[in-house]
Amino acid sequence: MKPQPIEYANASDEVKAVFDDIKTSRNVPDVNNFWKYLANDPVALRRTWSSLKEVMAPGALDPVVKEMVYLAVSVTNNCGYCIASHHAGAEKAGMTPAMFAELMSVVGMANETNRLVNGYRVPIDPAFDK
Amino acid sequence: MKPQPIEYANASDEVKAVFDDIKTSRNVPDVNNFWKYLANDPVALRRTWSSLKEVMAPGALDPVVKEMVYLAVSVTNNCGYCIASHHAGAEKAGMTPAMFAELMSVVGMANETNRLVNGYRVPIDPAFDK
Amino acid sequence: MKPQPIEYANASDEVKAVFDDIKTSRNVPDVNNFWKYLANDPVALRRTWSSLKEVMAPGALDPVVKEMVYLAVSVTNNCGYCIASHHAGAEKAGMTPAMFAELMSVVGMANETNRLVNGYRVPIDPAFDK
Amino acid sequence: MKPQPIEYANASDEVKAVFDDIKTSRNVPDVNNFWKYLANDPVALRRTWSSLKEVMAPGALDPVVKEMVYLAVSVTNNCGYCIASHHAGAEKAGMTPAMFAELMSVVGMANETNRLVNGYRVPIDPAFDK
Amino acid sequence: MKPQPIEYANASDEVKAVFDDIKTSRNVPDVNNFWKYLANDPVALRRTWSSLKEVMAPGALDPVVKEMVYLAVSVTNNCGYCIASHHAGAEKAGMTPAMFAELMSVVGMANETNRLVNGYRVPIDPAFDK
Amino acid sequence: MKPQPIEYANASDEVKAVFDDIKTSRNVPDVNNFWKYLANDPVALRRTWSSLKEVMAPGALDPVVKEMVYLAVSVTNNCGYCIASHHAGAEKAGMTPAMFAELMSVVGMANETNRLVNGYRVPIDPAFDK
Repeated sequence: MKPQPIEYANASDEVKAVFDDIKTSRNVPDVNNFWKYLANDPVALRRTWSSLKEVMAPGALDPVVKEMVYLAVSVTNNCGYCIASHHAGAEKAGMTPAMFAELMSVVGMANETNRLVNGYRVPIDPAFDK
Repeated sequence: MKPQPIEYANASDEVKAVFDDIKTSRNVPDVNNFWKYLANDPVALRRTWSSLKEVMAPGALDPVVKEMVYLAVSVTNNCGYCIASHHAGAEKAGMTPAMFAELMSVVGMANETNRLVNGYRVPIDPAFDK
Repeated sequence: MKPQPIEYANASDEVKAVFDDIKTSRNVPDVNNFWKYLANDPVALRRTWSSLKEVMAPGALDPVVKEMVYLAVSVTNNCGYCIASHHAGAEKAGMTPAMFAELMSVVGMANETNRLVNGYRVPIDPAFDK
Repeated sequence: MKPQPIEYANASDEVKAVFDDIKTSRNVPDVNNFWKYLANDPVALRRTWSSLKEVMAPGALDPVVKEMVYLAVSVTNNCGYCIASHHAGAEKAGMTPAMFAELMSVVGMANETNRLVNGYRVPIDPAFDK
Repeated sequence: MKPQPIEYANASDEVKAVFDDIKTSRNVPDVNNFWKYLANDPVALRRTWSSLKEVMAPGALDPVVKEMVYLAVSVTNNCGYCIASHHAGAEKAGMTPAMFAELMSVVGMANETNRLVNGYRVPIDPAFDK
Repeated sequence: MKPQPIEYANASDEVKAVFDDIKTSRNVPDVNNFWKYLANDPVALRRTWSSLKEVMAPGALDPVVKEMVYLAVSVTNNCGYCIASHHAGAEKAGMTPAMFAELMSVVGMANETNRLVNGYRVPIDPAFDK
């Protein structure tokens, strides 16, 4: 059977605790679908949320940069849900339309030159290998 | 036959002109291998350099952010040359070891959750589809 | 024009023979869409069914393991149809919700650490290269 | 600068604690290169090891199945290091040459039919979407 | 906010000029959605159209071969829009159903043997490395 | 243990028969490494060779086009062995340096625009969906 979402009302206490933390941390009235589906595995839910919170926290990189990198990877992998959710997340963190447009250009070029490098079998310059 | 690099001394005037512009723009004594291999196709060389110069110029995103996004895509695609060259490029643009470490964590998590989304077949939340 | 499915009633004898073998082997009343579309190329249909039957037969690996591996690859590649059909196939072969959940966690982690390895440029340990 | 491995002797106490746990859990005299490189980011090291230990523990799936799925994903993504290390890990968990051979056949077929599905634009059968 | 298409009537003069050139070059009454979305970034629109016109022009390879290669890459990457648009483009350039069927078989096999090579860790024959 | 190649002298009669057919079909004195490694699984060896011979035979597409498509997919997937072997195969079938250069440009552009489409979430034009 196709995986089904777990809504808050039907969730176990373990799942509710994670949902509550997501809602508080993000100041949102409900968690988004990703968490409702992942709640089918409460251990994975807890681990993934805990990891994501740690990884996406402000640090050496700004939150908007982290969200844009997340979007860049999702675009490269063509994950439709992830593109939609991290586009929204990046905008919330401050990404403007101009920033989005430049991001897409960089992602496009990187995917292009990655293949030119593969096809021409370019060896690594000694200067890049130190 | 395996593609071979074109060194400056053996390059056509058309290729030399692009090499000269790369060297001047980046303030480097020689172009890196990518350009020497792409020089087998002078039209692609000119187009790719011209596009890259336009895309990677400072704009709404800082050059270091652009280089880190380039690195994130290259890591996702596992292009060894591109990882090495854009790691160097990002460092030159200001990426510190702490920034690199956080970048890798974001790239890793994005690649992980992209697949969790695929496997659980998570539908896009209406809020992300506006 | 977009590829169209070939229904049994309109199929050539060559295609019908493959459809009949699929229906008998799997004990299903009709073939699923994949085969109806591939039937546009009767040679590819025959070859692909023949290969799949050989590859997915019980052997050193249990059928449920083979279906779960198929699902893991499809999730990694984000093939929506393949995820849906092999999720169903794995369940038919015995995959429980708990097995599915663990499978997704492994697939997620593998996609994450694959990129950490790429980004940190980790050399193969001599012990793994023997 | 290219990422460098952190050897036990030069590691911080935080890193040493993770290395010790890996060595004890796996009963090995030293950690493999992946951990030595990831040790450049002690937070990521701890999180990744903790997640991996949880995900790869025996559960609804046997350890050898988990290692084979890890290998299947790594082969699909072409991560050379991961292929080598999880081939070794799967063998240690009980994968025989016959099991490896069947695994590769399944991974190959899945990657092939994933693309046939994409190219023929096969719609999901209603039966697979429940 | 989700990216929105720019219709001709609402486009800037810069965007209109590119749209006009696409319509004239392809002899079509309107540009397809790709260009309407990319028009959110007039610089990327101009660069991408200019590059595409140069790359897809008849040369050492026939236009139908170029369109089929474009389709092969899009199928490998599972880009649904690109598969649909380049299928149409390849047909317009002369791809018959028989050519499409053979193309899919080649793309399928290549994706399969690419992974067999990865999994068996096949070293490059010296003859292929010259 | 790392997979090892099976040389003709040590091969079973079943494997020798496939090797002989490859050598005769291609008019080469020895099979390339791919077949020597795949020979660890004689069933997969026979099936893969038989499929490849069928798929790569002249038909609606010229052999050189098929080899170039194989190369395009291998470049997109970054399979180093496959890039080297199918570059050689394409050259043997008639690919000139100019054809290779154009092929790489198409592969590069396709990988770029695939991601622009993903990122801008471009819906399929009705005309492409018939």
